[in-house]
Amino acid sequence: MRLEDVHSPEDIKDLSWEELTDLAGQIRSEIVSTVSHRGGHLASNLGVVELTLALHRVFDMPEDKIVFDVGHQSYVHKLLTGRYWRFRTLRSFGGLAGFPKKSESPYDVFETGHSSTAISAALGLARARDLQGKTHQVVALVGDGALTGGMCYEALNDAGNAETRMIVILNDNEMSISPNVGGLSRHLTDLRVSKGWWSTKRRVRRLEKVPVIGKPLYRFIHLSKSFVKSWFVDEGFFSALGFHYYGPIDGHDLKSMEHTFRLARESEGPVVIHVLTHKGYGYEKAEEHPEQFHGTPPFYVETGDARKAKKLPGYGEVMGEELAELAQKDPRVVAVSAAMIGGTGLTAFQKRFPERMFDVGIAEGHAVTMAAGLATGGMRPYFAVYATFFQRSYDQMIHDVAMQGLPVVFLLDRAGLVGEDGATHHGVFDLAAMLPVPGMTILAPRDLQELRLMMRWTIDAPGPVAIRYGRHPEDMEADYPCKRFSVGKWEPLERGKDCALFCVGSMNPIGAEMHRLLRAKGIEAAVINCSTVKPLDLELLHCMTDRPWFTLEEHLLSGGFGDTVTAACREQGWPAPAACFGIPETFVQHGSRRQLLKYLGLDAEQLTERVAAILKDR
Amino acid sequence: MRLEDVHSPEDIKDLSWEELTDLAGQIRSEIVSTVSHRGGHLASNLGVVELTLALHRVFDMPEDKIVFDVGHQSYVHKLLTGRYWRFRTLRSFGGLAGFPKKSESPYDVFETGHSSTAISAALGLARARDLQGKTHQVVALVGDGALTGGMCYEALNDAGNAETRMIVILNDNEMSISPNVGGLSRHLTDLRVSKGWWSTKRRVRRLEKVPVIGKPLYRFIHLSKSFVKSWFVDEGFFSALGFHYYGPIDGHDLKSMEHTFRLARESEGPVVIHVLTHKGYGYEKAEEHPEQFHGTPPFYVETGDARKAKKLPGYGEVMGEELAELAQKDPRVVAVSAAMIGGTGLTAFQKRFPERMFDVGIAEGHAVTMAAGLATGGMRPYFAVYATFFQRSYDQMIHDVAMQGLPVVFLLDRAGLVGEDGATHHGVFDLAAMLPVPGMTILAPRDLQELRLMMRWTIDAPGPVAIRYGRHPEDMEADYPCKRFSVGKWEPLERGKDCALFCVGSMNPIGAEMHRLLRAKGIEAAVINCSTVKPLDLELLHCMTDRPWFTLEEHLLSGGFGDTVTAACREQGWPAPAACFGIPETFVQHGSRRQLLKYLGLDAEQLTERVAAILKDR
Repeated sequence: MRLEDVHSPEDIKDLSWEELTDLAGQIRSEIVSTVSHRGGHLASNLGVVELTLALHRVFDMPEDKIVFDVGHQSYVHKLLTGRYWRFRTLRSFGGLAGFPKKSESPYDVFETGHSSTAISAALGLARARDLQGKTHQVVALVGDGALTGGMCYEALNDAGNAETRMIVILNDNEMSISPNVGGLSRHLTDLRVSKGWWSTKRRVRRLEKVPVIGKPLYRFIHLSKSFVKSWFVDEGFFSALGFHYYGPIDGHDLKSMEHTFRLARESEGPVVIHVLTHKGYGYEKAEEHPEQFHGTPPFYVETGDARKAKKLPGYGEVMGEELAELAQKDPRVVAVSAAMIGGTGLTAFQKRFPERMFDVGIAEGHAVTMAAGLATGGMRPYFAVYATFFQRSYDQMIHDVAMQGLPVVFLLDRAGLVGEDGATHHGVFDLAAMLPVPGMTILAPRDLQELRLMMRWTIDAPGPVAIRYGRHPEDMEADYPCKRFSVGKWEPLERGKDCALFCVGSMNPIGAEMHRLLRAKGIEAAVINCSTVKPLDLELLHCMTDRPWFTLEEHLLSGGFGDTVTAACREQGWPAPAACFGIPETFVQHGSRRQLLKYLGLDAEQLTERVAAILKDR
Repeated sequence: MRLEDVHSPEDIKDLSWEELTDLAGQIRSEIVSTVSHRGGHLASNLGVVELTLALHRVFDMPEDKIVFDVGHQSYVHKLLTGRYWRFRTLRSFGGLAGFPKKSESPYDVFETGHSSTAISAALGLARARDLQGKTHQVVALVGDGALTGGMCYEALNDAGNAETRMIVILNDNEMSISPNVGGLSRHLTDLRVSKGWWSTKRRVRRLEKVPVIGKPLYRFIHLSKSFVKSWFVDEGFFSALGFHYYGPIDGHDLKSMEHTFRLARESEGPVVIHVLTHKGYGYEKAEEHPEQFHGTPPFYVETGDARKAKKLPGYGEVMGEELAELAQKDPRVVAVSAAMIGGTGLTAFQKRFPERMFDVGIAEGHAVTMAAGLATGGMRPYFAVYATFFQRSYDQMIHDVAMQGLPVVFLLDRAGLVGEDGATHHGVFDLAAMLPVPGMTILAPRDLQELRLMMRWTIDAPGPVAIRYGRHPEDMEADYPCKRFSVGKWEPLERGKDCALFCVGSMNPIGAEMHRLLRAKGIEAAVINCSTVKPLDLELLHCMTDRPWFTLEEHLLSGGFGDTVTAACREQGWPAPAACFGIPETFVQHGSRRQLLKYLGLDAEQLTERVAAILKDR
């Protein structure tokens, strides 16, 4: 059977084991090939090929429902549900999304992107089913990393309490769990080895690399020693929560999985199936470097090397460097991460100051309150987090940090349009979330050098500070050397009597480009870098309100910088901006940042036309 | 020893057991007496008298640190740390707060109010201590109810992993945990009974009353059967998380507690002490009705009856009635609560439709995503929650509900100034959180009747809806009968050519009063009830922008209704409001709503003066 002939899961239900094995190989080839061109999540998808095949053979989707936690491991599912011919468009503008999307297929039941939501959603689906007298099954597929998120416990607790019929598949690939910890985990490792999973050599190599998160969780899952000796035990962690527990089973053994899934399907209560998979399975480079191939840019399949050499260091790297410098000078400096040390640029910091780096797991809420505790104890905590995941700590930011005026620094990476990861990952709500919070200082650097200066300032900040920066660094240093940063003082980059462009962070390079384009039209536009988003530089703003003026931000227009400046002008009795430019009220989908800016009318060319038209009308 | 002579915990360290028992009695009298006049949290404080005494005798506060989860059980602590003479001002404007406050005392280390934060904060404090080479202990005092919140697990997981030296005291009063469930819990009950805790009779009575939440959690805590037979076992739930476990011990037996605390104090790693307490202990009325005396208005000590009979039904009760009516007609209607069925007015709904009422524990994040699952499955979920606790589900509201356009209805109770509970409990961020979210509809009724009409509309709403209402219902029905509600259409209550007052929800009665006061000054003010906060009624707004106009909201000014209307006027090229009235950028403290409105200049008298002055200046 050729993969291209699989139009729906029905097509794989009658295949022989040999045909399925062959199909699994084709799926892996297709995924490796596509991701090598498009970038995306590789290792996790290679790990769930057999698991997804087994799911679609045993369950009748879309009548039965499956919810993918995080959702980046849904590629195999996409290939099996009629999306083979569009798969090469993965993560491209207008193409298939890298996450489940209801608009793509009725097989995508619930959209995900952030971690630890699937059990909650599946429980809701199961309750709806019961109230409607229906009988289908509901499955949540959850990675072991996601289990460090508190929402999973809340959902397990609720589901076990209600004895709701549903299935949680724990996809345990040990990525977020430290395997090198004492008795119980060694038993599991022994089990894995005895099953021929990977050689002892490889195991040892992995032990050295996997980050140390979730050790207690690991003990937790493997609470009952007896499961090592007998499969399908009904004791331990999940049993205590009211779940039937099946496992652990080999996630690359179709027969075992199908057998277990069929048993579980008929269960009358909540079931956990503990499946052991191997991240990157089948593509040697990804097996050897599962972290590198978790989310990867386009790469050469032969070598595993990235197709494009990275030119500039990213904001995260520069932040990490500066933070390490601060830590060198000031023993109060500590860093906090929610399972994203690498992603946020803290790897070097961790190496230099391991005892001052706290990785708390996928637990943003706890991260912020723990940071509040550190600050209360006299430290200077820096929490580096993607802006979109920061949403998980909204209440803690207000209630535990800002209300006590604690000097916690939030380093919001991937703010603005994040690109190919799409709607769930854009960081476009953060300013609206933080601007109303009493006592917050909010900064947005225009380039890497300004980020350095801001980092140095934070060490003496009297209260909470947030610095937001985008995924895509643009260096303005050549044209506009960044000499100093003063909090609350904006920086005029260009003079211009005809109008003024007030730019936040990533919009400064676009403002500078607009300056050139407008000049070509005979319009002199001042460009102001609004490096401090809160508090506003009212003095400079006032100076400029004698001419038509505009605001530019890579954030939702509603509740963002432009609205805040507009409100300030109302308070002061000054003229309102002629227009504010930002993201309109919509959930922006995936595509490159450049494409998305163009689509939203936020590139320099279109903005120049809009400004010129407004000035002409006045 | 008289309680009034206790100026610091040092004063109780040398007391005999007899003196301590006497002191405990004085403390109980003082608390019952004060709360009977001031209102407040009674049952929980009566339950921790001996526990708090033991803590202050064993630990050296404030060198050692204690963090109170939620914080409403800190009254005994306040009495023992030099605040006896101010205790009668509890919860009053300018008086002692009902929660820990750093500004009151160096013994209040970390401020709390929302649930499940204490272990995170304590872990941060402990890590700060270790990095500074200090040796004091850090204690988190956590109720069993708070353990249903996922943040506790995130924190336990992190602390156990790091093996940080700290103490978690689990104050297990069974309030949020169903005791009537199978084997293990019966063992615990047996233990309690054998220890002479309460009579079998009383136990049976309680079994019937305690709400059924957290059954699995209960199994969880009591995972190991062996602890029933031996104290100070080291197995089970917390051991799996890396904690040393001591317990369960009698929380009204000072000797046992002191002994255990002294043992724990010297421990080198993380410790859990499981303490069994009796909510309301020592005041019969509270022991019999612990739910009623959890948070209570002023009452007569003799009878336990409230001092003031309730006049109007509250918004919650009316919401609950209407929801039950909707449920009667439409089988898709379901209700979701985060351990607040009584507090949000859902008791009657629960009685009529027990199978359609989902109480998920103190787990707002899970509640919202579970509701999203229910909606995906074709139901119409209504999540009733206090506006301040809704902050915990900010990400889930955006990522799981709004992004998929699901018809989940958020019923935000206690929006605005909540009164005596103070800064941590005011619901003044909700509009700023929701206004930027694409596709949200936001409503705010002016009175109970309008809430009824809004509830009826929600059943056909195409996407997510939020209705915000305050704690204090005010009935405008007599003067302004509410005939109909149309989403997106504002309601002119009064005509007036000189200016217009655009009022949101609870500010409508104040607007109506201003109309009368302004008329006495010869100013005719139109009053408009902006019952739909999003989307705006631009047509009506436009009609009124020919005269000076004002906005009024019980919400932070920044990011609220006024700022949104101002931004809309910028977009439309209409004149901005002459002024927007709302809460300035500050964390408002405790006091009656009336006092707080006056303090903030938001009462009808002061607002009238401000409007008149602005009109005079123009």
